Amino acid sequence: MNLASLETPRLVLDAAKMDANVARLKARLAALGVRLRPHVKTCKSIEAARGLMESPAGPITVSTLKEAEQFFAHGVTDIFYAVGIAPGKLDHVVALRGKGCDLKVVVDSVEAAEAVAAKGAGIPTLIEIDCDGHRAGVKPGAPVLIDIAKALAKGAEPRGVMTHAGDSYACRGDDAIRAMAEQERRAVVESAAVLHAAGFEAPVVSVGSTPTAMFAQNLEGVTEVRAGVFVFMDLVMAGLGVCAVNDIALSVLATVIGHQKEKGWIITDGGWMAMSRDRGTAKQPVDQGYGLVCDEQGRPLDDLIVSDANQEHGIVSRRGGGPLDASKYPVGMRLRILPNHACATGAQFDAYQVVRGNTEILEQWPRFSGW
Amino acid sequence: MNLASLETPRLVLDAAKMDANVARLKARLAALGVRLRPHVKTCKSIEAARGLMESPAGPITVSTLKEAEQFFAHGVTDIFYAVGIAPGKLDHVVALRGKGCDLKVVVDSVEAAEAVAAKGAGIPTLIEIDCDGHRAGVKPGAPVLIDIAKALAKGAEPRGVMTHAGDSYACRGDDAIRAMAEQERRAVVESAAVLHAAGFEAPVVSVGSTPTAMFAQNLEGVTEVRAGVFVFMDLVMAGLGVCAVNDIALSVLATVIGHQKEKGWIITDGGWMAMSRDRGTAKQPVDQGYGLVCDEQGRPLDDLIVSDANQEHGIVSRRGGGPLDASKYPVGMRLRILPNHACATGAQFDAYQVVRGNTEILEQWPRFSGW
Repeated sequence: MNLASLETPRLVLDAAKMDANVARLKARLAALGVRLRPHVKTCKSIEAARGLMESPAGPITVSTLKEAEQFFAHGVTDIFYAVGIAPGKLDHVVALRGKGCDLKVVVDSVEAAEAVAAKGAGIPTLIEIDCDGHRAGVKPGAPVLIDIAKALAKGAEPRGVMTHAGDSYACRGDDAIRAMAEQERRAVVESAAVLHAAGFEAPVVSVGSTPTAMFAQNLEGVTEVRAGVFVFMDLVMAGLGVCAVNDIALSVLATVIGHQKEKGWIITDGGWMAMSRDRGTAKQPVDQGYGLVCDEQGRPLDDLIVSDANQEHGIVSRRGGGPLDASKYPVGMRLRILPNHACATGAQFDAYQVVRGNTEILEQWPRFSGW
Repeated sequence: MNLASLETPRLVLDAAKMDANVARLKARLAALGVRLRPHVKTCKSIEAARGLMESPAGPITVSTLKEAEQFFAHGVTDIFYAVGIAPGKLDHVVALRGKGCDLKVVVDSVEAAEAVAAKGAGIPTLIEIDCDGHRAGVKPGAPVLIDIAKALAKGAEPRGVMTHAGDSYACRGDDAIRAMAEQERRAVVESAAVLHAAGFEAPVVSVGSTPTAMFAQNLEGVTEVRAGVFVFMDLVMAGLGVCAVNDIALSVLATVIGHQKEKGWIITDGGWMAMSRDRGTAKQPVDQGYGLVCDEQGRPLDDLIVSDANQEHGIVSRRGGGPLDASKYPVGMRLRILPNHACATGAQFDAYQVVRGNTEILEQWPRFSGW
């Protein structure tokens, strides 16, 4: 089967590019002596994740209990659920652990720690550190770490600390990302030291974001790296200098359905429902609109971008506007659009059409969504 | 069952508000003497659509062939697929029609018309008119209309004209929307007249957007109105003055998972994966962030909005920032978030939790996604 036989839009995964992306990060982390705990929120597919994991049992990171359920159903047991646990989900966590899933959770307050401990189930629980003011977590090394660990110890198991340098997505330049990686590392190492000093073991010291994972120079004291987007890469990562445009493994196959010749517009059936509403490159030096347009082989085409989108219509034009020769892009022509954000675009589809460097479909890998 | 028993995030539909929204639009269109062909791209659920349709057979509008398939499988036969047809989808259209689905398509070029006619299957086909420079379509009354109709007549059936006033979403004030509704009406009536003068019947003269449907004063010459968002309404519609915030039937149930007290932040498990990345209110006079926060009963709460979002984290703060009393929003508290855009937020979920004015779950309605 070939891409030409598919109704559009469809989600295309170039497994050759994916494999290269995975190998690149694994080599980096091996050199730094740190374990990879890949974040499967990006791929949400057991087939895509197999090449990421050390073993069929994991380890992995998840962003929802549905991901934990799905991967556990496929034999993955070493799972860290890296979003602050809601008390209403704890019975579900206990049930999964009861079935043999070694599921770990995270908290960032005494209040949440008490809720986990109250289950009396010894749930291994990390404490979230706020390394960059980006979202959740306690300040690095803050005394409240000890209060949280003490609260956990009453019925859960304090397992260590974790952080996510989300602000690395806003860095400009390699040096800024390197500095952020060091800031991320120090935040957890310093926090683990506070716990050690108070008599807690804190065996897990976990960091992770794709930019910092790709630029970290030193991960001393860190035991594992969580990263997700690296598997596919995307235009936001390319804009940060974390990858090249040619490394992006994910694209949306769309079809030309018309033109507005006076405006230099090509209309496609790849709208925001297919690309997602993510406009993550809007604040970067190069704004890629809703995506960068490639030909059916996956090669960037005439500096075209998806400059605007309706639910099921994409508007393709030259970057910055201007006339184009509509006859070069006839009705029925197939295009492949590289996404701003692999996690957001992937989530709009229920399967990957897997190719390797050309247009032949080798496999179809299901992916799940929801909670 | 009650909302309190659900793991979050979940999609909540208040059917009492939905019914009132539907009754309001139906009464308007009845007074104007025009038929409603509801756009089911918003609800993607046969249960939600039943109250919108004239009869179990329709009519409806769809944005994908998957919607056509799903609704046809539930007995709906009068279906208009309102996105310019890609030639690669025509065999699918012919197959559906062969099974008894009265599926209509749309084109806006001689090129696409020739592709439809080449099937020799008499597919009823509308011609898209560009009433506002928003996306696809030929200029109102343009001579090319006759060329397209002639091309269609060679193997398809020219059925009339359609347009969508997408720019109504950018109108400011009731008068601007009324003027846009009249512009939308004139565009198709004028185009139908051109076809009549050339000997084509053009029995269908179709318009549609929720803002213009809610504000049109006169629909003379129009035979049907397509609208979708009106069924649920959303913050973009409220910002346009098309509905009140209290009319919004859709919300995302989320749970408080933590705080950043120094910043006045509440952290929830309702991130952009749940809300979608749609920031449709960003350009409106009142920016609602990723959504307006209500209590579990659905009542707006302390002027809180989702000011930022990660994939599975929502950051809730006071509009404009400032301190808040975190103890009022403890870990575990349930919130309901009104969405910017019902179509985009709905698409992130696989079911509606149906309530009527309170927190008791009366039914769960499945919804589908994808293509």
